[in-house]
Amino acid sequence: MRRHLVIIGGGAGGASTAAEAKRIDPDLQITMIEQGKHVSVAACPMPYFVGDTIKQEHKLIARTPEAFRESGVDVLLKTRVERVDTDQRRVYLSDGPEIVYDRLLVATGASPILPGIPGQDLDRVYTLRSLEEAIAIKALVQSGCRRAVIIGAGFIAMEMSDALTGFGLDVRIAHRDERPVTRWGVEFTERLMSTFAERGVLFMPKTTISRIDQNADRSLRLTTNQGEIETDLVVIAIGIRPNVTLAKAMGLQLGDSGAIRVNLSQQTSVANVYATGDCTEVYHRVARRWVNVPLGDIANKQGRVAGQVIGGRPAVMPGIVGAQSFKFFDLELAATGLGEQEAVRYGFHPVSATAWAPPTAPSMRQKEDIETGLKLIADQSTGMLLGAQAVGRRGAVQKIDVLSATLWYEARLDDLASMDFGYAPPFGGAWDLIHIVSRLLLKKL
Amino acid sequence: MRRHLVIIGGGAGGASTAAEAKRIDPDLQITMIEQGKHVSVAACPMPYFVGDTIKQEHKLIARTPEAFRESGVDVLLKTRVERVDTDQRRVYLSDGPEIVYDRLLVATGASPILPGIPGQDLDRVYTLRSLEEAIAIKALVQSGCRRAVIIGAGFIAMEMSDALTGFGLDVRIAHRDERPVTRWGVEFTERLMSTFAERGVLFMPKTTISRIDQNADRSLRLTTNQGEIETDLVVIAIGIRPNVTLAKAMGLQLGDSGAIRVNLSQQTSVANVYATGDCTEVYHRVARRWVNVPLGDIANKQGRVAGQVIGGRPAVMPGIVGAQSFKFFDLELAATGLGEQEAVRYGFHPVSATAWAPPTAPSMRQKEDIETGLKLIADQSTGMLLGAQAVGRRGAVQKIDVLSATLWYEARLDDLASMDFGYAPPFGGAWDLIHIVSRLLLKKL
Repeated sequence: MRRHLVIIGGGAGGASTAAEAKRIDPDLQITMIEQGKHVSVAACPMPYFVGDTIKQEHKLIARTPEAFRESGVDVLLKTRVERVDTDQRRVYLSDGPEIVYDRLLVATGASPILPGIPGQDLDRVYTLRSLEEAIAIKALVQSGCRRAVIIGAGFIAMEMSDALTGFGLDVRIAHRDERPVTRWGVEFTERLMSTFAERGVLFMPKTTISRIDQNADRSLRLTTNQGEIETDLVVIAIGIRPNVTLAKAMGLQLGDSGAIRVNLSQQTSVANVYATGDCTEVYHRVARRWVNVPLGDIANKQGRVAGQVIGGRPAVMPGIVGAQSFKFFDLELAATGLGEQEAVRYGFHPVSATAWAPPTAPSMRQKEDIETGLKLIADQSTGMLLGAQAVGRRGAVQKIDVLSATLWYEARLDDLASMDFGYAPPFGGAWDLIHIVSRLLLKKL
Repeated sequence: MRRHLVIIGGGAGGASTAAEAKRIDPDLQITMIEQGKHVSVAACPMPYFVGDTIKQEHKLIARTPEAFRESGVDVLLKTRVERVDTDQRRVYLSDGPEIVYDRLLVATGASPILPGIPGQDLDRVYTLRSLEEAIAIKALVQSGCRRAVIIGAGFIAMEMSDALTGFGLDVRIAHRDERPVTRWGVEFTERLMSTFAERGVLFMPKTTISRIDQNADRSLRLTTNQGEIETDLVVIAIGIRPNVTLAKAMGLQLGDSGAIRVNLSQQTSVANVYATGDCTEVYHRVARRWVNVPLGDIANKQGRVAGQVIGGRPAVMPGIVGAQSFKFFDLELAATGLGEQEAVRYGFHPVSATAWAPPTAPSMRQKEDIETGLKLIADQSTGMLLGAQAVGRRGAVQKIDVLSATLWYEARLDDLASMDFGYAPPFGGAWDLIHIVSRLLLKKL
């Protein structure tokens, strides 16, 4: 008899597991259950779909239900799982027959955190967690709305402010704290702040919203501690949290982060139950502990491992170093590893240094060149690299990708100070910014 | 009494050693002897000076003789060393008094290889190894010469063809082999070849020059196996070789590469004699042997180590992985580690895989985007990465820098297939090209 894999959730974690498991074991029977209308939607490019860099919505769908079905994966859309009996290995749906599984994958993803204020569910108040919302925002913007308020100032809020400004909207960012994207140090967010000013985005620090009301013409009115704001559109982007209600009911252990605890083969604490994606923890190689980092590329990697293991081939997810980047107008922001506060929390003794350099050799520098900034954070007692942050018009992601690779191997600063890169004058100095900052930081050990 | 460091050669290796030694031990007496008119000339940006991206020649001089003298380093220009007595620790000049040293640094650099044909020393036949030559070429080009022939097709020949084409010159590349820059595989040099065609550079494969003659109007006539070529300017760029005549006469051991043998502290086989830069060997961490790689960034790193050791502080040069890059019109070419032929020569069993991807996530791909190509080479028996090559309009250097960092730590393909990078849709796919090619290559193990 064919073994049966049942997958709860059709996001990146579920879809990548299905694809890989089928590749390894073509005989495996797979059923993927998704409560929404789509599977395999790429969430990361959504701001670029809203901003119309990506014109067609189908480009956000990595694999359609039809394509899954053709490869032999049953896909149940608009279907909710009511309950799972892990002893009997049965999944009960809100509507339809129960399903017996041999292996179960929980890939329930994450949901937007809502501020818990009156009006948060109004029409024209969005969270950008589904393709439907992205389509609705884009339609509204293209129908001529003029004003938008983004609540929150994480990287998705930044991407959305860029996308909406591109349509000529008057964009405000209402943020409860002083500065956006606190993963990056003040010297780097300073660059974001000047970009806000240049691009006409109004950043409103220390702003809390107490309610949202709808006007007669369907426009919205926000009541804030800074007074009232009239707008046509609200995007709430204050973070997401793992969906673990079902996992808890099933008795799966959660980790300290609140996400589902898994081992390096993506197995949960319950026999025959696996988990992948935003609802799970992942091993952070630098922090040396399990964390919840809801990013699509991590979900894909976990899915590949889970798919191999379920398909019958041993595999491990070696963890992450915590690399991340985003584009904001003409700026690249990127970071990896730990920030200073995190490092302290995890028992390290961080020291840091920052330097700036043009994206070419100094001799080739052009007047219009914007310097790239790089900050390295190391452990004072061991000289081990702990993390890095970068900003620039080009080269910031490059530096962070290189440093991510070195973090993977537990780099020490003295390695970084002499490692050879593909130096040529159009691409940087003979002493790379990585060498320069490493050397500055070595003096602080 | 103050210790005396005598440095023979004022290029990158000599100048960086002087600067670092003085920093560590301000009391050290330093004399730098240079046979040319300048010290501390950056050779790498010279094609960009010729091409006028760099307008002023002083930008090629990292540190002037005056600046060295102010910091307490004596600089003797246009001075030749005749002979060194390593027993008596004396340097004899062709002109001037003998100099007694406590420590001696040999930093005699490298010289262009000449084809050994009649006319190679004619006026308007250049090699681009000195600032004077770069100035002369630029003056000639700016005075309205129309035609140039570049002999050779290494990366400097490529950079020069780009620079000279920028002035509207009719540029031919005469190369004895079939293809340029053989460090890169055929699938990548193909892209160079199409760029030649687009930019109007005439690439002449299998062309050997037997003589160069001067016409009455000072223009030049090349006799080749493909017929005669009339031109206004010839640049010979067929490679360089280490200057070891003096080192040999001093009894310094040379390595298999023909360059001066040093240890990881830049000491030669003779007591109190150090060496750095293009005239020396450097430890290649992937090949696991000593090689001669004449690049400015390596000379700088060796100089830093030698300067520290001579200044009295232990230091080691941890070696190189062999990263290299150059820009050619709008293309980036980069490579690191070993190529397949080298790998075979060094006893490995190389297998390789290549893939191409747009520089953004596939969903954001624009029509005009040119794909980036990446080739990985690994050892079939161990799964260790041996080398990589890349070409693209953007991102090629980035990939190679990341892979260089992983080579430093003896990366295995399974690491590369799951390492996390700063993924965001404008900068690449959720599966990075590095993941994609690693996975392809894992199937060949």
